[in-house]
Amino acid sequence: MHFQNMFIEHIVSDFTLTPFLFLGFRTMSAQYCISFADVEKAYNNIQDFIHLTPVLTSSILNQVTGRNLFFKCELFQKTGSFKIRGVINAIRGLMPPTSEEKPKAVVTHSSGNHGQALAYAAKLEGIPAYVVVPQTAPNCKKLAIQAYGASIVYSEQSDESRENVTRRIMEETEGIMVHPNQEPAVIAGQGTIAMEVLNQVPLVDALVVPVGGGGMVAGIAITVKALRPSVKVYAAEPLNADDCYQSKLKGELTPNPYPPETIADGVRSSIGLNTWPIIRDLVDDVFTVTEDEIKYATQLVWERMKLLIEPTAGVGVAAVLSQHFQAVSPEVKNICIVLSGGNVDLTSVTWMKQAEKPTPYQSVSV
Amino acid sequence: MHFQNMFIEHIVSDFTLTPFLFLGFRTMSAQYCISFADVEKAYNNIQDFIHLTPVLTSSILNQVTGRNLFFKCELFQKTGSFKIRGVINAIRGLMPPTSEEKPKAVVTHSSGNHGQALAYAAKLEGIPAYVVVPQTAPNCKKLAIQAYGASIVYSEQSDESRENVTRRIMEETEGIMVHPNQEPAVIAGQGTIAMEVLNQVPLVDALVVPVGGGGMVAGIAITVKALRPSVKVYAAEPLNADDCYQSKLKGELTPNPYPPETIADGVRSSIGLNTWPIIRDLVDDVFTVTEDEIKYATQLVWERMKLLIEPTAGVGVAAVLSQHFQAVSPEVKNICIVLSGGNVDLTSVTWMKQAEKPTPYQSVSV
Repeated sequence: MHFQNMFIEHIVSDFTLTPFLFLGFRTMSAQYCISFADVEKAYNNIQDFIHLTPVLTSSILNQVTGRNLFFKCELFQKTGSFKIRGVINAIRGLMPPTSEEKPKAVVTHSSGNHGQALAYAAKLEGIPAYVVVPQTAPNCKKLAIQAYGASIVYSEQSDESRENVTRRIMEETEGIMVHPNQEPAVIAGQGTIAMEVLNQVPLVDALVVPVGGGGMVAGIAITVKALRPSVKVYAAEPLNADDCYQSKLKGELTPNPYPPETIADGVRSSIGLNTWPIIRDLVDDVFTVTEDEIKYATQLVWERMKLLIEPTAGVGVAAVLSQHFQAVSPEVKNICIVLSGGNVDLTSVTWMKQAEKPTPYQSVSV
Repeated sequence: MHFQNMFIEHIVSDFTLTPFLFLGFRTMSAQYCISFADVEKAYNNIQDFIHLTPVLTSSILNQVTGRNLFFKCELFQKTGSFKIRGVINAIRGLMPPTSEEKPKAVVTHSSGNHGQALAYAAKLEGIPAYVVVPQTAPNCKKLAIQAYGASIVYSEQSDESRENVTRRIMEETEGIMVHPNQEPAVIAGQGTIAMEVLNQVPLVDALVVPVGGGGMVAGIAITVKALRPSVKVYAAEPLNADDCYQSKLKGELTPNPYPPETIADGVRSSIGLNTWPIIRDLVDDVFTVTEDEIKYATQLVWERMKLLIEPTAGVGVAAVLSQHFQAVSPEVKNICIVLSGGNVDLTSVTWMKQAEKPTPYQSVSV
């Protein structure tokens, strides 16, 4: 989706001139897998291939929360989620100067937004993509991956089978694995969201970011603390998948002990070795929310803002609506929530099931 | 919803300087209930109270249709539909210079978007609003009307009962009826959509507008044919409620013979005495679409654009996707579809039914 005349003039490119106000940063950055310079490079790599997504506001939601909320609409991003930023940056980083040397294939085992984004980005560069998917995955996800031109390879549902199949495919295709959230180029790509937000909402006091593997919140934290360190970065997480909260509480990486059950399917992963140090040092707080809070927040955005966000994007909204968030200082007034994606399984909408594709466009692939 | 930095600079106010290029217009306008001057006045009346809604595009939908489509997002308008434009203009037209003389009440019998808009606009001006609703109307509509502060009055389902109750309420409250689509001030208010579109999409070749009572398409046709008469105005209508198509075909006002059954609940009304002459003379063509085409188009916009449009807004999209539309000259390249509203009954979304409002905000009215 393209945004007619929308904001294009607001994304200025003087980021390289901005001094590192956060004085400790240069030395601190050595301990992390990326620095802000990588985010800047990522923005140069990807800006021609992504949308500068709009920031919307809602007077109803301001009224409910008593803050000024700004919604960064990554649901309008290409492939329907922010994931395309990291994936394009990673794939372009793999591309050598001459086309003969380009990678033989890219491989992943995410059947969600990362899988779709990888499929789309690989097609853009003319590289075959293979996505390992459990046979039990919902049909709509398989169809979306295939629609973007990737090949699906089935595994059993166990982690072991998934890893074995992925390894076999990587060997057979000489393919390169692009990790959805621990790959540094992916983390740097997601950080570009914050570069846009700091320009679109100059008076922003805090960003609220859903956290699964932590690629997005880590990239955003690196960027925000480099460019404007007084701005808070809050992670938002389902209570049923609270590894980020537990890790911060204990001061050590504490993955989810078992596969979490949450409607927010985009944040079921645990944070990892690359994202944890950044989250530990640069994320100001973590807010956990119940399944009911996620559903209610998602519904509120559908009803009141007419934006078809996925429940994972509802996690950030739920965090700001939560009782816990009321303890945040009233001085943190202007809050930007990243609406991470809009890939909802619409087969749950009863009247849509009855809609047959009309004949004239039967053959057009949409 | 407000649009952060969005388009504000693109809506220039030099409309009054634009000559009437359509030379016959001045004399023709005498036969209609409004002229373009009324639309200009309406814009002055309402512009501080409405959103300048954005225009979005979708590369997928361009690809499917082979045209450049522009989506005017009135689903983001206050109260979730374009109806607020006409209603605010009508109510402000009723307001005298001193507050003592303002109307005692406003009354309508639309339980849909017009009812919600009237409730909102009346509250804005501090006038009581009464909406006559059949006892069988869906709960979500009643709740929305009450949430905007209007009183609901029940009638039986028959037209006779509805009219009797409406008349009684008008007498009891000394209230003024605001007709949803034949009131000239309402028609002029809806015309302001076209003033915005002609500025936001300077190269537009055609506007596609869903038609029920015809208030929106009439206001838009008056505006377009005054400002840029070469731009086409197409009406889009469910085949199951094709009174506009039949009227144009026969050259005389031909209301639907019985209450139409269509999922597009916003366009079940027939065009009327005020909108018919404008539609007859200034609307270039009418496209009818089946229920399956409406559902499919609505689903496509949900899935691909992540915009929660109501099926009535899907009627315009379905028209442009239809086989019939392929006969339109390829020179009609840049087409703006008015996405009229986004007030969808979400009780049909199964997982949402399970979402209880979480405790912290139990008492906040959203």
